[in-house]
Amino acid sequence: MNRILYFIPLMPDIIASDSSESSPLLVVGSVAFDNVITPQAEQERILGGAASYCSFAASYYTQVRMVGVVGNDFGESDLDRLRARGIDLEGVQKDDSGPTFFWKGKYHENFNRRDTLDIRLNVFEKFRPDLPESYKDSSFVLLGNIHPALQMHVLDQLAGNSFVLADTIDLWIETERESLLSLIKKVSLFVINDSEAEELTGESNVILAGEKLRQMGPESVIIKKGEHGAILFHEEGMFALPAYPVTQLHDPTGAGDSFAGALIGRLSSRNRSDFSAIKEAMLYATCTASLTVEAFGCDRLESAGKSEIEERVASLNQLISVT
Amino acid sequence: MNRILYFIPLMPDIIASDSSESSPLLVVGSVAFDNVITPQAEQERILGGAASYCSFAASYYTQVRMVGVVGNDFGESDLDRLRARGIDLEGVQKDDSGPTFFWKGKYHENFNRRDTLDIRLNVFEKFRPDLPESYKDSSFVLLGNIHPALQMHVLDQLAGNSFVLADTIDLWIETERESLLSLIKKVSLFVINDSEAEELTGESNVILAGEKLRQMGPESVIIKKGEHGAILFHEEGMFALPAYPVTQLHDPTGAGDSFAGALIGRLSSRNRSDFSAIKEAMLYATCTASLTVEAFGCDRLESAGKSEIEERVASLNQLISVT
Repeated sequence: MNRILYFIPLMPDIIASDSSESSPLLVVGSVAFDNVITPQAEQERILGGAASYCSFAASYYTQVRMVGVVGNDFGESDLDRLRARGIDLEGVQKDDSGPTFFWKGKYHENFNRRDTLDIRLNVFEKFRPDLPESYKDSSFVLLGNIHPALQMHVLDQLAGNSFVLADTIDLWIETERESLLSLIKKVSLFVINDSEAEELTGESNVILAGEKLRQMGPESVIIKKGEHGAILFHEEGMFALPAYPVTQLHDPTGAGDSFAGALIGRLSSRNRSDFSAIKEAMLYATCTASLTVEAFGCDRLESAGKSEIEERVASLNQLISVT
Repeated sequence: MNRILYFIPLMPDIIASDSSESSPLLVVGSVAFDNVITPQAEQERILGGAASYCSFAASYYTQVRMVGVVGNDFGESDLDRLRARGIDLEGVQKDDSGPTFFWKGKYHENFNRRDTLDIRLNVFEKFRPDLPESYKDSSFVLLGNIHPALQMHVLDQLAGNSFVLADTIDLWIETERESLLSLIKKVSLFVINDSEAEELTGESNVILAGEKLRQMGPESVIIKKGEHGAILFHEEGMFALPAYPVTQLHDPTGAGDSFAGALIGRLSSRNRSDFSAIKEAMLYATCTASLTVEAFGCDRLESAGKSEIEERVASLNQLISVT
């Protein structure tokens, strides 16, 4: 297993922030190749996985330090896509013993439901997110939806008080509940979708579910509701944000990861994590995620420029403005 | 058939507006007695129907002129409830030939679905919304979800250019489509829920459905999404508003009618119908409807004071505020 050391720091277009000291962001998660079937089309060998989506999204805001594992089928051209967005790949492990994590899924009519048709962990099965020394001082950390024990392993390596966003999936709620509950206690911002929130809390009312989740430890909780937006629960209050009005839905895969990546990317670029900053970052997160779903995989996210995100944020601000 | 002429103009608490000339509002719709079964409880002989909910809700904002029909089981105490909110009952017809419109329904777990267990039109079957002379100059008109031909009959009696809000239900989309489409062309603001919008336009994407509805004639369209809020489509742009965060859902019956009543009630109290005014009125509508669902029938709506609505509007403004 080798590290990909040849990091070429490119300077992609980054959305300006009001902070003079942007803080680098650590992103940990899966890297995958996906085959995706939608009601309209299908595509194979899509660069995916939580770490990819999170990193691409966050790269519009801050310097991203990426941790994940790729297999013997992961090529230079794949790495170049990440490098082109200025993503630091020192933490990406290359494991030549097998292929990259593989997922095949099919979305049904109206994207209301998806089925997993095939899943192969491959090199991801033995993945252990050991951080390079240079990553341990990261003051903003995104734990993608990997096994809660691996997420905890990342926390154990951090030098100091980081602002930690954690995401999860229904699989861990069902199979690793205790481990997940231990992790939640230690994170700053827990992000979860509405059906998972109900599964974890047993509460079908989203407002009550959010309050219950906050009582489990995290300072803040965001419940994502897909096309219906997201709600932030914070000590200082709640904030409800509609989704960006998407009319060209092509592939919802990675929308949640893009949301999380852009959210903490924006926070780290401003070096802030207060209530008001999280609210503002949710606008950027919503708009960045809206790009992801307009094409397969990370394609649209990669090709969009910062100006496109900024235009959407302006539109979203208009959409929610009463005056 | 007699008119209930003995209108006693009470002065209930009304929410202040910035207009010196509040305009009276004409409300037309059904008056009913409902039996409602929820997962938690059940109640019989609930004063309901679109006209009742709309009128109670609107009565917090403006002088309401109510048009509907009640049967031989409708008592003085029922009328007194409406009078207590200052509602003008000159347009309410008393038909002693039979009982009031009756509906019995049952809500399922989480209120996701409801079944109609019994429906008896009774005196409503022969109802014809003939307006008292004094109502014909109404510059704000709410057409509750009755048969589109009856809604059109109301429009035909109006003296001049009124701002007309129309609501409908799935029944008319399925059985009276052409008649409904003719009506829609003539209304200023068409209000519909998301599943009905999909049924009427064949478009599952709510943004595209809203645009299609606007192309059918009305200047503005509001699509209601229940707990996920509502979206306004207007020539000048869109506006998305989350729902007021309700944690005590008891009976959703009449939420949509209360929304419509408060919405146009607020507009008529300000004597405005522009984009900005509709957006502002949606906040009041959302908060007023949130009261309705916290008890059976109109109980909570009646008992709440204007200060409770104003507090909720302040909370909702906070909930959607980015700064």
